[in-house]
Amino acid sequence: MKLALDAMGGDDAPQAMVHGAIDYALAHPLDTVILVGREGDLRACLSREKTTPSNVTIEHAPEVIGMAEKITALRERPNDSMNRCAQLVKQGKADAMVLCGNTGCSVSAAQLHLRRVPGVKRAGILTPLPNPKGHTWVCDTGANAVCRPEHLVQFAEMTVALLESSYGRVSPKVGVLSIGEEQEKGTELTIETCELLRKTNLNVVGNVEGHDLYSGDIDVVVCDGFVGNIVLKTSEGLIDGAMTILKEEIMSSLRTKIAGKLIYPALKGFKRRTHWSLVGGCPLIGVDGVTIIGHGRSNRVAVFHALKQASRCVTGKFIERLRARFRNELDTAATV
Amino acid sequence: MKLALDAMGGDDAPQAMVHGAIDYALAHPLDTVILVGREGDLRACLSREKTTPSNVTIEHAPEVIGMAEKITALRERPNDSMNRCAQLVKQGKADAMVLCGNTGCSVSAAQLHLRRVPGVKRAGILTPLPNPKGHTWVCDTGANAVCRPEHLVQFAEMTVALLESSYGRVSPKVGVLSIGEEQEKGTELTIETCELLRKTNLNVVGNVEGHDLYSGDIDVVVCDGFVGNIVLKTSEGLIDGAMTILKEEIMSSLRTKIAGKLIYPALKGFKRRTHWSLVGGCPLIGVDGVTIIGHGRSNRVAVFHALKQASRCVTGKFIERLRARFRNELDTAATV
Repeated sequence: MKLALDAMGGDDAPQAMVHGAIDYALAHPLDTVILVGREGDLRACLSREKTTPSNVTIEHAPEVIGMAEKITALRERPNDSMNRCAQLVKQGKADAMVLCGNTGCSVSAAQLHLRRVPGVKRAGILTPLPNPKGHTWVCDTGANAVCRPEHLVQFAEMTVALLESSYGRVSPKVGVLSIGEEQEKGTELTIETCELLRKTNLNVVGNVEGHDLYSGDIDVVVCDGFVGNIVLKTSEGLIDGAMTILKEEIMSSLRTKIAGKLIYPALKGFKRRTHWSLVGGCPLIGVDGVTIIGHGRSNRVAVFHALKQASRCVTGKFIERLRARFRNELDTAATV
Repeated sequence: MKLALDAMGGDDAPQAMVHGAIDYALAHPLDTVILVGREGDLRACLSREKTTPSNVTIEHAPEVIGMAEKITALRERPNDSMNRCAQLVKQGKADAMVLCGNTGCSVSAAQLHLRRVPGVKRAGILTPLPNPKGHTWVCDTGANAVCRPEHLVQFAEMTVALLESSYGRVSPKVGVLSIGEEQEKGTELTIETCELLRKTNLNVVGNVEGHDLYSGDIDVVVCDGFVGNIVLKTSEGLIDGAMTILKEEIMSSLRTKIAGKLIYPALKGFKRRTHWSLVGGCPLIGVDGVTIIGHGRSNRVAVFHALKQASRCVTGKFIERLRARFRNELDTAATV
């Protein structure tokens, strides 16, 4: 399997990307990681390493799009690393891609070159949120600020396809993020989405609330990208804020300082079960090719796990399953 | 000052309400707490206490509305404790009210009897979220699932009025919850709200994101009640989920178990700075009378603090300030 990695994207690129690629390549000798970016920069990075595994290759892309640029940059710089990654997948030279740069441009580059799976109306960013029992998968967390009910229904169908194909889950529970469990609560969007979802063969529980995102009782939650992105950023901010307060309290006495040292293994265990870097990234579901959107702050560990997630989607034949699911829908629509 | 307390509302009513009222009355001998509810039940509760301060009185309301009932219950049972609380404020027999029961019915009872301050288009629930430096005040967290830009602008104006009148804050920073700091990011609602806010005399920072809710850098954040309620419930769920995982990790070895005992004072300090029960409740801003909506799970401590918050709004002359602010707006509108 060949995985294209945008080596220029992310706050710590290309260093973190090169490190993550090497770690992945060493652990998975049958796969190849293609570092996509400025060849000179990448060679310089690799030359500082003890070993460069032979299954790490370079694909030269002379241009770079920065973290804060607008999506028009994609048209202005067709030879940048994001465009190039997507072209590699499109041309069959890579089986999947991982992009940790500018999210807006990454999402657009994927859609521009790979298009959507026939029948899919919108691509969505799927984010796994940690809970005490595993993860709650939320879609969309930012690709579409405004959505229609049929988009949310497709997000649910695609997420279930991913969990069943690549994570061995059977009939995961699906909920619609709203503000009350009663069927009539919420907005037009959530009420109509619930109605449409009940007509599918998915395991639909109906409306769920914010606290259900972290209970472990629901597997898949759909919402528009505006709400999903706010949920995601609120969660990150809350953990940061809570840790700041907790650290201040721990540092306020000798007893709690000592306890803080002693408790370290538990904090490490907590981090192992919850930190985004160990999830690796968020699949952009609906585009016609495996695309993983990584966090802009990705370090080598996050890159490693994002590559792993990409490989999982390829092995599980996620895209083939999507094509089959929506081909059936298109056929049904055509015969009606 | 006289504070009406819905003694029948909340998961632990009337016990928790009676206890909170006694604690408040003992600490504030010049104020009176009026327990509103079934006289027999309340007398039975009070008789089990060592002391009943003379500044705790009972107002009989023979009917009760349960936590899961619909707002039609308010019309069907006009002699329930929520209707009665609002009537006491309307008639000037109480200066403020605290309601910890069914949120939908509480909000409706307040609006039904007290109406809105002239010029105010929607009442919103204002929730203080803890951050390392104090609180971020978010409105609306659930009274209105769908809002227009002018509603969000008024939520900002009313929240600033509350912070300035009752919390001694000067020119607090106001943001609009969105999904990107750039002015053009977000939905029609957030973009138009930002434009309108910039025409006011408020200290407007523009769009803010989910993580800003817990950074301590923004004082006031406005959003529609759908998004606000999801933010609130997500935050509660995240803290619960995180604590579950952390406890499991702490209990997984002897060393961390001991550390868990030693670290207790820091956890207590953390709770003191963050727990909702010490905030006490959420002002329902925009109705023409001080109304505090308490958490359904309120215990005696939460009730005590909710009563305190009500008294703070009365002392700060919050309602008078609202009336003045919106009277000016009405006058301006009339002359245009």
